[in-house]
Amino acid sequence: MSEVSLADAAEAMASIWSPIDGGVTAPNGFEAAGVVAGLKPSGRPDLALILAPDEAVCAGTFTTSVVRAACVDLCADRLSSQDGRTRAVLINSGQANACTGDRGLLDSQRATQAVADQLGLDHDTVLICSTGVIGVPIPMPTLLSGLGSLIAALSDSGGPAAAQAILTTDLVEKQAAVQAELGGRTVRIGGMAKGSGMIHPNMATMLGFFSCDAGMDAAIWRGMVRRAVERSFNAITVDGDTSTNDTVLAFSAGAPLAEEHHADLEAGLTQVMQQLAQAIARDGEGATCLMEVQVNGAVDEAAALRVARTICGSSLVKTAVHGRDPNWGRIVAAAGRAEVAFDPEAVELWIGPYQLMDHGQPVVFDRAAASDVLRQDTVQIRLGIGEGPGMGCAWGCDLSDQYVRINADYTT
Amino acid sequence: MSEVSLADAAEAMASIWSPIDGGVTAPNGFEAAGVVAGLKPSGRPDLALILAPDEAVCAGTFTTSVVRAACVDLCADRLSSQDGRTRAVLINSGQANACTGDRGLLDSQRATQAVADQLGLDHDTVLICSTGVIGVPIPMPTLLSGLGSLIAALSDSGGPAAAQAILTTDLVEKQAAVQAELGGRTVRIGGMAKGSGMIHPNMATMLGFFSCDAGMDAAIWRGMVRRAVERSFNAITVDGDTSTNDTVLAFSAGAPLAEEHHADLEAGLTQVMQQLAQAIARDGEGATCLMEVQVNGAVDEAAALRVARTICGSSLVKTAVHGRDPNWGRIVAAAGRAEVAFDPEAVELWIGPYQLMDHGQPVVFDRAAASDVLRQDTVQIRLGIGEGPGMGCAWGCDLSDQYVRINADYTT
Repeated sequence: MSEVSLADAAEAMASIWSPIDGGVTAPNGFEAAGVVAGLKPSGRPDLALILAPDEAVCAGTFTTSVVRAACVDLCADRLSSQDGRTRAVLINSGQANACTGDRGLLDSQRATQAVADQLGLDHDTVLICSTGVIGVPIPMPTLLSGLGSLIAALSDSGGPAAAQAILTTDLVEKQAAVQAELGGRTVRIGGMAKGSGMIHPNMATMLGFFSCDAGMDAAIWRGMVRRAVERSFNAITVDGDTSTNDTVLAFSAGAPLAEEHHADLEAGLTQVMQQLAQAIARDGEGATCLMEVQVNGAVDEAAALRVARTICGSSLVKTAVHGRDPNWGRIVAAAGRAEVAFDPEAVELWIGPYQLMDHGQPVVFDRAAASDVLRQDTVQIRLGIGEGPGMGCAWGCDLSDQYVRINADYTT
Repeated sequence: MSEVSLADAAEAMASIWSPIDGGVTAPNGFEAAGVVAGLKPSGRPDLALILAPDEAVCAGTFTTSVVRAACVDLCADRLSSQDGRTRAVLINSGQANACTGDRGLLDSQRATQAVADQLGLDHDTVLICSTGVIGVPIPMPTLLSGLGSLIAALSDSGGPAAAQAILTTDLVEKQAAVQAELGGRTVRIGGMAKGSGMIHPNMATMLGFFSCDAGMDAAIWRGMVRRAVERSFNAITVDGDTSTNDTVLAFSAGAPLAEEHHADLEAGLTQVMQQLAQAIARDGEGATCLMEVQVNGAVDEAAALRVARTICGSSLVKTAVHGRDPNWGRIVAAAGRAEVAFDPEAVELWIGPYQLMDHGQPVVFDRAAASDVLRQDTVQIRLGIGEGPGMGCAWGCDLSDQYVRINADYTT
């Protein structure tokens, strides 16, 4: 077994958080639903709703793209004006409502107003996320007529149905939940996500939704969510493209948690987010494996993450992994262009348990055995770039000819 | 004919620079040679030399990678200590001499010392560039024993032979030269380059070498070369990877040119560099077309170039072009993540003569005709992002399943 795997196993054993079922409705007090409204030509579920308890706060992170959908603006504005006080989020799949002009924002407002009216909520406490084809408006009569059955379907076991309804090109649904004993009670964190690790042709978006039944101060919760997203969704890359609609929303609602348990809570939130982020990377189009790149010895975590992401995003590294080629030259070349200063003479590189470079130069290694490591379901690459304390991990997938065919053959 | 093509035609007609033969030895006073020294297992030419006139100055631009070869350090150091006064550059193909530790620099020094001795030059005025496999030292006895025949072969018609000897994975040799009447005399600019638009598996490097028989002040020349490289070699991308050895060296030697002609000279240098940069992009592995992305309306040229390069480097845009799909959503999504601020409502997009977006929204266009544009040898994409004066152009190639197969099947 490799050093890397041992470290992972040790980490998993050390976690106080145990997996449970239920996804985003695993935490107490949260309800969700997913139904077929008719927004997708395929007839699959396409409308989801999450309802959080009365006192919920919500934190969000959004795409950094200059070109972002109207619903992203709406979410960001309402979270800001309400200081996070939010009760519900509506999610439609089928149309991303991006590049739709003024109409896009009006439609987002109408949809959330209708949800607020039917649930008896202030419209400012309802958010909306959209995913699907860019440049096409949401068929509003279809969406509005679906709200009745959606709200009727709300239940504390609705997480899995909601996780289905937010999918677009995903091959598999993605949900997770964990629980732990904190301060003498059980705390649960749940989540669901969609995205096949790339922007599908005109099909926008990575979305993630999280729930937690420990109550947190809004500002503290925002910090936790931001850091956990940085270590999970912002640490995956499939082809470097960022969508118009990428959004993560995380709700916290319940009895307050003493400050001494905050670090544990953040670890649990990070664990759930990383599990879903890895699922997205693994679901990358044409992917045959998950790539995990660990970088250590950087000056700080940000530098380590930057190097790890650059390696994960390199087409040359991705094709080498697909070809099961332990090509250290491509890995170190990708690291070199990450715009992070390090001493090339300090570079150490491992693929699984096999060391490929030491002190910046190649070493003799068992090439056949290293190639076998690249045949595993999860390929672990570890790069040391110095003596600094910064560590970071990024995830991606290999680049296959299948990826090219899927994306070249697709016709808009 | 598209607007873009008309603009190009107009620009070409407006240029005072006419194409000539001879490559890097087209300008007066420059000699070059290329021979088989035995560094490449294939037995192809692998050692080249350029000899510039006595009073030559040289300007260089180098890879920004943290991991750079010893020869790059040597070139940068000597150009700096000599204020550009340089007479010759030796180029070996076969071994990149990167990731070779202290030995790498010693070998580079020995090689240039040997050239200097045999030519009767100060060793500080001789440079060396290497390209080939990373992590493997240059077989020095082989290189040194090849210098005699290399120097014997130096001639003022040696440009084409040198252009052959610097190739590694390139499918075609790349050289260009132009001349113009400036200040009552003929001025010539020549050049050669290698690189197939990507870092081949462990095969480092884009290299470019230029010569000009107008004499320039070293500092002014450095500025010209820097700007011309920015608009040519720095504006091409195939897979985003930057090599350990990327180097451009440009020599100027001859009667001084009056300041009123400097702008014309820079235009000629830019023209030659762009021609070779486009040849590299077109020679990208598995490429079936050249992508040319023009961005206008940005706040400045740097912003326009950044957006153009991001579009050119997007795997989703590249696969769409390969699939002949006029996929405006992928293009605008790539523009949005270029970290350049613009108003999404101002976006206008053309593929060839066909407008796909106006005021940030899709417009009705002839899809079959636009798809035909993507079947052309050169695919022209034009994006407007506002009313600013900044314009920029970048080049790349499509991403084919052939690219993946070449890079996945290669075994280090």
